[in-house]
Amino acid sequence: MAFTPMEPEVVGVAGLADGLDLADLAAKSAQARFLYVLPNFQNPTGRSMGEASRAALSQEAARTGLPIMEDNPYGDLWFDRPPPAPLTARNPEGGIYLGSFSKVLAPGLRMGFIVAPKAVYPKLLQAKQAADLHSPGFNQRLIHAVMQDGFLDRHVPTIRSLYKAQRDAMLQALATHFPEAASQPEHNLTWNTPAGGMFLWARLPQGMNAVDLLPHAVDQGVAFVPGAPFFAGPPDTRSLRLSFVTPSVDEIHLGVAALALAIRARQV
Amino acid sequence: MAFTPMEPEVVGVAGLADGLDLADLAAKSAQARFLYVLPNFQNPTGRSMGEASRAALSQEAARTGLPIMEDNPYGDLWFDRPPPAPLTARNPEGGIYLGSFSKVLAPGLRMGFIVAPKAVYPKLLQAKQAADLHSPGFNQRLIHAVMQDGFLDRHVPTIRSLYKAQRDAMLQALATHFPEAASQPEHNLTWNTPAGGMFLWARLPQGMNAVDLLPHAVDQGVAFVPGAPFFAGPPDTRSLRLSFVTPSVDEIHLGVAALALAIRARQV
Repeated sequence: MAFTPMEPEVVGVAGLADGLDLADLAAKSAQARFLYVLPNFQNPTGRSMGEASRAALSQEAARTGLPIMEDNPYGDLWFDRPPPAPLTARNPEGGIYLGSFSKVLAPGLRMGFIVAPKAVYPKLLQAKQAADLHSPGFNQRLIHAVMQDGFLDRHVPTIRSLYKAQRDAMLQALATHFPEAASQPEHNLTWNTPAGGMFLWARLPQGMNAVDLLPHAVDQGVAFVPGAPFFAGPPDTRSLRLSFVTPSVDEIHLGVAALALAIRARQV
Repeated sequence: MAFTPMEPEVVGVAGLADGLDLADLAAKSAQARFLYVLPNFQNPTGRSMGEASRAALSQEAARTGLPIMEDNPYGDLWFDRPPPAPLTARNPEGGIYLGSFSKVLAPGLRMGFIVAPKAVYPKLLQAKQAADLHSPGFNQRLIHAVMQDGFLDRHVPTIRSLYKAQRDAMLQALATHFPEAASQPEHNLTWNTPAGGMFLWARLPQGMNAVDLLPHAVDQGVAFVPGAPFFAGPPDTRSLRLSFVTPSVDEIHLGVAALALAIRARQV
């Protein structure tokens, strides 16, 4: 949505379980102005890039001169261990890093930050001034205060453990309702196991469509985000995003039960 | 600056002391997409549109179908009497009205509001979402609270009387240092008397240029904004903007004295 006013031609790069498909990237990067990527617990899949994938991508981008826009709103929300170093840390002149306080403090403050090469600063400043003059000084001071007095450092671990417990509850509920997901994936909901963040990525049984299922799931009392709108190219219409951070553990169990009911009722 | 990313062709409409030159507008409006206008205590001139001018402009815009973008950040800062009704109140379907809390509450909150025809809402929402998703909910709640509990209504009159006293101090200081401004305008600084807002508009003696004068004024300890950058067409390079709201009354007297010294020292 942020890029749309510039009317770009968006081309998707194939994703692997722990990174980008570099052969696919190489085939597409010659015409690209930049690569936009979320290496940590990305929206919508919850996937992360591993150390080897980051190293390879960083080298490839440096070799071809492809600028990287690295978006990292979820990176602090790791469950068991911190993610590998950002791409920008590997090649600070090779791109722009975007951080956010929305997921670790409050989305209602609308505050984030940018790390960029010095040469890019004047253009960023110009674009920011044209967009809104500057971010609210009041909100900047508020965030400065909670960083300086240590609140933010104490707060983030509480979010990590909360979200981890909620992810575990969702994984447990899914395993309960779809016990044959691994052995018969085409006849069950299947899902991944994100190592952090807010979402997991799931896939409906064959012959089903997430957009079509949604109103029936809502009738059962649960909602999800169909995956199709997230695709730059032809979508996987069976895909969907499940968020585990807003509902409580009890609500997660009720929600997954409702989702299973909706799927089974529509399954041929 | 807000319009610049869209690369518009900006055409200025001649201003009269209390409104727009409607003949000039008629000559230019056929190719125009919209008219942007600040009817109250405008930046940079401090001028306002009178009742008759508003009525005539509103009729002319309605007749030709020219949409009006009415920007009103300063309208609440009147000194003796409230300004006439906004253009948008005369023809609500004919344009977009922009309000702001920056001048009456705090610029650091970066909050304003829009009044627009219902048909325009979906496009405004789309543009806002692309720009920043939404304005900070925290700041919206804060402003809602100070409106609901009456603070804003009590606060604005205190700003009016403060700024009026500061305008009066500046007018008095200018009259003291340029006593022959009325009788010999070409050899003196001349200025207008805004009925509200934050600025007055002044003009240097003949042969002087505000951009050239600025560093010499700064050497004397006072700054102003040269008028030239505010012009859409060929600028009046003798024009400049004087703000009377940030400095105290004592500082205003010192500042005008310093400005007079800088002018007299450079005057041939």
